[in-house]
Amino acid sequence: MSTFYEAHRGLLEQALEAIGKRGYWSAYPESPSKRVYGETAPQDGEAAFKALLDRPFELDQPGADSRVGAERSPYGFDLGITYPKASVEDLVSASRGAAAGWSSATPEDRAGVCLEILQRVNQRSFELAHAVMHTTGQAFVMAFQAGGAHAQDRGLEAVAYAYQEMARVPRAVLWEKPQGKHDPLRLDKSYRILPRGIGLVIGCSTFPTWNGYPGLFASLATGNTVVVKPHPGAILPLAITVKIAREVLEEAGFDPNVALLAADSAEAPVTKELATHPAVAIIDFTGGPAFGDWVKANAGGAQVYTEQAGVNSVVIDSTDNFKGLCQNLAFSLSLYSGQMCTAPQNLYVPEGGIETEDGHKSFDEVAQGLATAVDKLLGDPERAAGVLGAVQNPATLERAQTLAAEAGPALIRAPQAAEVPGFAEARTLSPALIKADAAQGGAFAQECFGPVAFVIATKDTAQSIAEAAGLASEKGAITAAAYSTDDAVLDEAAEAFGNAGVSLSCNLTGGVFVNQSAAFSDYHVSGANPAGNACLTDAAFVANRFRVVAQRRPHAA
Amino acid sequence: MSTFYEAHRGLLEQALEAIGKRGYWSAYPESPSKRVYGETAPQDGEAAFKALLDRPFELDQPGADSRVGAERSPYGFDLGITYPKASVEDLVSASRGAAAGWSSATPEDRAGVCLEILQRVNQRSFELAHAVMHTTGQAFVMAFQAGGAHAQDRGLEAVAYAYQEMARVPRAVLWEKPQGKHDPLRLDKSYRILPRGIGLVIGCSTFPTWNGYPGLFASLATGNTVVVKPHPGAILPLAITVKIAREVLEEAGFDPNVALLAADSAEAPVTKELATHPAVAIIDFTGGPAFGDWVKANAGGAQVYTEQAGVNSVVIDSTDNFKGLCQNLAFSLSLYSGQMCTAPQNLYVPEGGIETEDGHKSFDEVAQGLATAVDKLLGDPERAAGVLGAVQNPATLERAQTLAAEAGPALIRAPQAAEVPGFAEARTLSPALIKADAAQGGAFAQECFGPVAFVIATKDTAQSIAEAAGLASEKGAITAAAYSTDDAVLDEAAEAFGNAGVSLSCNLTGGVFVNQSAAFSDYHVSGANPAGNACLTDAAFVANRFRVVAQRRPHAA
Repeated sequence: MSTFYEAHRGLLEQALEAIGKRGYWSAYPESPSKRVYGETAPQDGEAAFKALLDRPFELDQPGADSRVGAERSPYGFDLGITYPKASVEDLVSASRGAAAGWSSATPEDRAGVCLEILQRVNQRSFELAHAVMHTTGQAFVMAFQAGGAHAQDRGLEAVAYAYQEMARVPRAVLWEKPQGKHDPLRLDKSYRILPRGIGLVIGCSTFPTWNGYPGLFASLATGNTVVVKPHPGAILPLAITVKIAREVLEEAGFDPNVALLAADSAEAPVTKELATHPAVAIIDFTGGPAFGDWVKANAGGAQVYTEQAGVNSVVIDSTDNFKGLCQNLAFSLSLYSGQMCTAPQNLYVPEGGIETEDGHKSFDEVAQGLATAVDKLLGDPERAAGVLGAVQNPATLERAQTLAAEAGPALIRAPQAAEVPGFAEARTLSPALIKADAAQGGAFAQECFGPVAFVIATKDTAQSIAEAAGLASEKGAITAAAYSTDDAVLDEAAEAFGNAGVSLSCNLTGGVFVNQSAAFSDYHVSGANPAGNACLTDAAFVANRFRVVAQRRPHAA
Repeated sequence: MSTFYEAHRGLLEQALEAIGKRGYWSAYPESPSKRVYGETAPQDGEAAFKALLDRPFELDQPGADSRVGAERSPYGFDLGITYPKASVEDLVSASRGAAAGWSSATPEDRAGVCLEILQRVNQRSFELAHAVMHTTGQAFVMAFQAGGAHAQDRGLEAVAYAYQEMARVPRAVLWEKPQGKHDPLRLDKSYRILPRGIGLVIGCSTFPTWNGYPGLFASLATGNTVVVKPHPGAILPLAITVKIAREVLEEAGFDPNVALLAADSAEAPVTKELATHPAVAIIDFTGGPAFGDWVKANAGGAQVYTEQAGVNSVVIDSTDNFKGLCQNLAFSLSLYSGQMCTAPQNLYVPEGGIETEDGHKSFDEVAQGLATAVDKLLGDPERAAGVLGAVQNPATLERAQTLAAEAGPALIRAPQAAEVPGFAEARTLSPALIKADAAQGGAFAQECFGPVAFVIATKDTAQSIAEAAGLASEKGAITAAAYSTDDAVLDEAAEAFGNAGVSLSCNLTGGVFVNQSAAFSDYHVSGANPAGNACLTDAAFVANRFRVVAQRRPHAA
């Protein structure tokens, strides 16, 4: 069994070093390059994806007496794939049946299996990129990176944290307590890692792998069996992942039911039944605030780790690179049509304008500068398609269009459809930019998921910070950005956002963007505001997924 | 500020090593010896305790407009001490007001303050031992050890875990991502430890310090402010602790309201109001299952760490030291009249008896052997008083007496009062031993807290293990013991109890007892059955008491 561990031990050690240092590190190449992945990898991956379409997905799971699946690509076609559907009781029963062997494996054996799964997932990155693209709507390169390499990094990060946490518990010790003149008391103690039970992973429709892998691999590595419940609109990437996991588990001599897929439909969802099942001991949830709150309130004794959503803000105070500011934010607003949980929504600008390297810019000039930068970024149709991708959910597109239509003269930039070469029916929309006034409130005080952002006038930067940080505390936020030439302003913003549980990016004008979160370095989601109760990934994300039980015996002299 | 850290740095480093190795280690001498604590320490401590009686306890807290306190020693006298009482809102407001300074201190500064508090607590171990004795009923030596040195060890262990967890987060890093031929992307990242808010420590009446210190020091060390809500019957030990904490905090330049006492009365309890207050972010609860479940269900978004209760079992299969077995269990049953959360309650013996070094013993002979060993242990009145201590709660005494009275011929050993020299009105009771039959059920299927234990007949050892482990899963258990000369039986017991989340002690016949749990080595409570959801102490106990927020800025070349 331990051959997988031996094969991947070096990688695990590098990952363990990386989570301690938290500088830049990545295990899986993010470039969809033939030089890296092989000359035929791109066409092989595309062919593998196409071979999956319009037929039943082969996944040999117990109790699968019917099939389910109605995914439609946001690029305009039905995937036509069906997945096995079993009852919740059958899934739970199979998962329980697989528990004993997996639970009694060593942390090394389990880490080896997890890393082999990740390696095989990585080898199928092109196929998975197409799967992510045609379920989430991410453009291909983003699907390859965020849905592929970066998600794999997040999975590895979770394995590393889990392994490190278990490695802190010694297997056995001699406990020897001095007794003055008498012989010491001596006990042989041994410690056993005890998993919690079944880990349920509830996937989302926009980042099924990036958000799903941390919980999946954290639960697996700590000895729990896992049931993966994908969003009905984005089943395929997780189905491929579970299939790979089951193959590796079986090769390693474990019951493949350690990993199970619980595909369902929007019409007959099974999430609530799974989440409230007494055998489910851990729930990793990514999704909307309302259902996330329901899961937290109804999960019974299960540990619940959530990433929900929030309102991400940018405070614009001053800059020595206005052009860079506008270009940088234009990209962050446009990327995947604002469907990232890290995308900025509210841009706070003093009503009196800001100072720049070109002198003073009025509020309207700042707003116009941002709109123009978005126009320029998306001016080239091919680049526009590559940045925007497609909109996963029709409701997201409608919300942005409605907000734009209702904005009247406050509309700075009208959202527009983009053409995607080869996909005439792709559902696309570029960001709407809408002016607002902090004093008057409005739609910006809620999360408006998707391609819409607000440029909000405030009295001054102090108010910008107070409004943005207040909203983060109240509604949650995952990212924040600030632009200022005054370090004191940045410090003030860092303090306020920090107190609201939000990390702050300052003066990003180049090739790093506020909505990027790097495995092994950035703590994604703080867990300290309503945007989520857990961080991907830190010690708290893994340490409670297992428990320790001991045995004490008198020391055999 | 950092002088406390420098003073105690060596001790912290030893503690950090100890939690990794988990062999025997202790920081605070458990012997109430003049050689260790000073020639006059015993009488000074007693005098200090007596000087506290029959007067208001001096604790300068905000909003304290009235006084509360009606503690009565289980040794038969009223303490006559009153404590300041403030409204929950006043306490929360004061706690919040103290948060900023404490939160922004370094982990080193906070660890230094915590270790200085522990050192001063240790210096007052005799005084605290009297305070613990005359609130909990523990005999003096036990109060000195479990309520003093061992509790201090548990506090230090929590500080070490908390410090280690925070130390895993670097303060600042350079993130440098290669860009092929181009310059790398470079960000300066800094990470900030963000506490959760107010930590509420809900104390119990039997082990206010031993069970209270882990949560208290874990929350303090991670930057949270703390409100300590003692049991109305055992306020004094925690009041002294909070007073010391406030003194040290103030000397270190912090707001003393980082630590507050919330004394209340049984007639007008404030625990529910505190536990449901939105500012309370962490709750450490020790107490009964019903109220513990209430806290978990009603704590809102607060993290809740509980030690509730369970039914601890002993499986007696065979032994090569029947006398040692009986003596060892007699002590475990008698110590503090069974009022330890680790004390055994159910002793499972095959109806056909067991094999011993003296040949076969019938079920009744085993039962009688245990009863005789208890009689012998408690035959000397002075030793009896030192072992039994007094019974904290009259209801505990009545329950044991009622069960004994109702047992009829099943009563193997009648509970008896003991005389405590110097305390004619001490509330004492030696353990009742009652025969039962696994097949017929009875009182043993519930927790019967206090001096009562059951010798339960089973078909065979396999049934003993199944019954005991099943009860542990269902009702919770904190300890288990097994006696067998057959390693296969011990392995089977370890597997079954382990799966039920219970650590197992095997063949204890000498000077180590099943109800002893050693800091730095034993994981007290697994958190994996209804006896509690957390362990004292592991990484999971501390890692979620703080969060991390970051700042990213372009690297200044």
